[in-house]
Amino acid sequence: MANLINRRQFTIEWGHCDPAGIVFNARFFEFFDWGTWTLFELALGIKPPELGKAFGIVGIPLVDAGARFLAPAKFGDTVEIASQVSEFRRSSFDVAHRIFVGGAVAVEGSETRVWAARDPADPAKIRSQPIPPEVTARFVVA
Amino acid sequence: MANLINRRQFTIEWGHCDPAGIVFNARFFEFFDWGTWTLFELALGIKPPELGKAFGIVGIPLVDAGARFLAPAKFGDTVEIASQVSEFRRSSFDVAHRIFVGGAVAVEGSETRVWAARDPADPAKIRSQPIPPEVTARFVVA
Amino acid sequence: MANLINRRQFTIEWGHCDPAGIVFNARFFEFFDWGTWTLFELALGIKPPELGKAFGIVGIPLVDAGARFLAPAKFGDTVEIASQVSEFRRSSFDVAHRIFVGGAVAVEGSETRVWAARDPADPAKIRSQPIPPEVTARFVVA
Amino acid sequence: MANLINRRQFTIEWGHCDPAGIVFNARFFEFFDWGTWTLFELALGIKPPELGKAFGIVGIPLVDAGARFLAPAKFGDTVEIASQVSEFRRSSFDVAHRIFVGGAVAVEGSETRVWAARDPADPAKIRSQPIPPEVTARFVVA
Repeated sequence: MANLINRRQFTIEWGHCDPAGIVFNARFFEFFDWGTWTLFELALGIKPPELGKAFGIVGIPLVDAGARFLAPAKFGDTVEIASQVSEFRRSSFDVAHRIFVGGAVAVEGSETRVWAARDPADPAKIRSQPIPPEVTARFVVA
Repeated sequence: MANLINRRQFTIEWGHCDPAGIVFNARFFEFFDWGTWTLFELALGIKPPELGKAFGIVGIPLVDAGARFLAPAKFGDTVEIASQVSEFRRSSFDVAHRIFVGGAVAVEGSETRVWAARDPADPAKIRSQPIPPEVTARFVVA
Repeated sequence: MANLINRRQFTIEWGHCDPAGIVFNARFFEFFDWGTWTLFELALGIKPPELGKAFGIVGIPLVDAGARFLAPAKFGDTVEIASQVSEFRRSSFDVAHRIFVGGAVAVEGSETRVWAARDPADPAKIRSQPIPPEVTARFVVA
Repeated sequence: MANLINRRQFTIEWGHCDPAGIVFNARFFEFFDWGTWTLFELALGIKPPELGKAFGIVGIPLVDAGARFLAPAKFGDTVEIASQVSEFRRSSFDVAHRIFVGGAVAVEGSETRVWAARDPADPAKIRSQPIPPEVTARFVVA
């Protein structure tokens, strides 16, 4: 058994890069977000904008994010992001991302997200909620 | 009588700039958006997120935007954006923006926006609506 | 004979969208930039970061950009951008972009760019330069 | 003795926010970058784009970044970012950022950056370099 990994390729664009000619750091956190949504689509077979309705949640808000920048990515590079859930807890989970440039890991990222629903006692508030086992089961491959 | 002009100063940041070392073009359209919201706040005395509720609209969605790039803006430049409504029509209006670098116009921008409310016949739809005269009156200075 | 058209599909991401749930206008100008670079790669067979060296230019800086927003693009939409040079002049050219959502044009964009090289008399300056006929010829399809 | 803290206020814009109506996570990493550059300007009295030339470095590239999202920031919020160097090492340093909304910490961020210069043996390469003591001294307040 192993964790399901989503792989997605894309190109580094001119507008992703800063005056040093490399991807501006904040862009990588956009890419991590892309990776998480497509991982969930791959695992659950549900289009990202339908995820909330399908499970009665408001979404999977981010509570923690981090990145280690090991090598630069440059304009025109074809990169691959590999994303997997590294741990499911009761109502939160971690996603690990690796961005490859030319086959080598250029950036390692991590996100902690919450399975979040409206508070029945106060719908203006959001609170974490247990992640259904039928969800977590879909992130494991035999 | 003249049109009310909103002036706002800000600094060009590292992350606004591209590998040529100058502001990436898409950023200027962000700056125009900043200019329009603060112009409306100046004219109407209403915080931008309260604008919809105050006038029974969903917002002022953009239907057209354009820019002429006359001179570059660079990392560390202090710039000023001057924004004014150049024309009010029945249910739409044009905003003209000028971005100054070192006292000279570096970018001229224009936006066409619609005064938009939910369609009473179908709340999933949005349609333009007459702009109240008490709104347009606030954009003129004696 | 017709103009070469580059078509590129991509997905609208969460981070592209604003509180109205639709793509924030400035993002479309990023997409136009993506379209232009890939059109040039298709036409000339040269990777975007190599374009400058291949032709002795510093790039193809933007001097004018515009967009008409006809219909919204939303999180999860698969969109296609179709880009073509609509006119070549001596040292500048126009690129026309159409972004399709569900088969219908949602956004029409235009860019005017310059074929720009360092000024031999003052390398700190950039000036427009005639576009080589072997370049323009590649943007026509029989 | 204490660490010099740079405080900077700004407004959350429409384009900073995502379909949940709150600041999209990647934007906070832009804000951290704003905070670091202005902290260095405050400490050293040198405009950010002049920093490299002043100290014979290529810049202060990021090797690690992280954020904890404690509370949302919304369109129209006035926020303050407080930034300080939390540790100087031989050739790298950590910057701690706190973003306040309504007086409470909404986001805590950290960056690790390197004092980086061209490698004399191979100018195409960049390597870390000892941070001059006259630099570190400026980040302490009596």
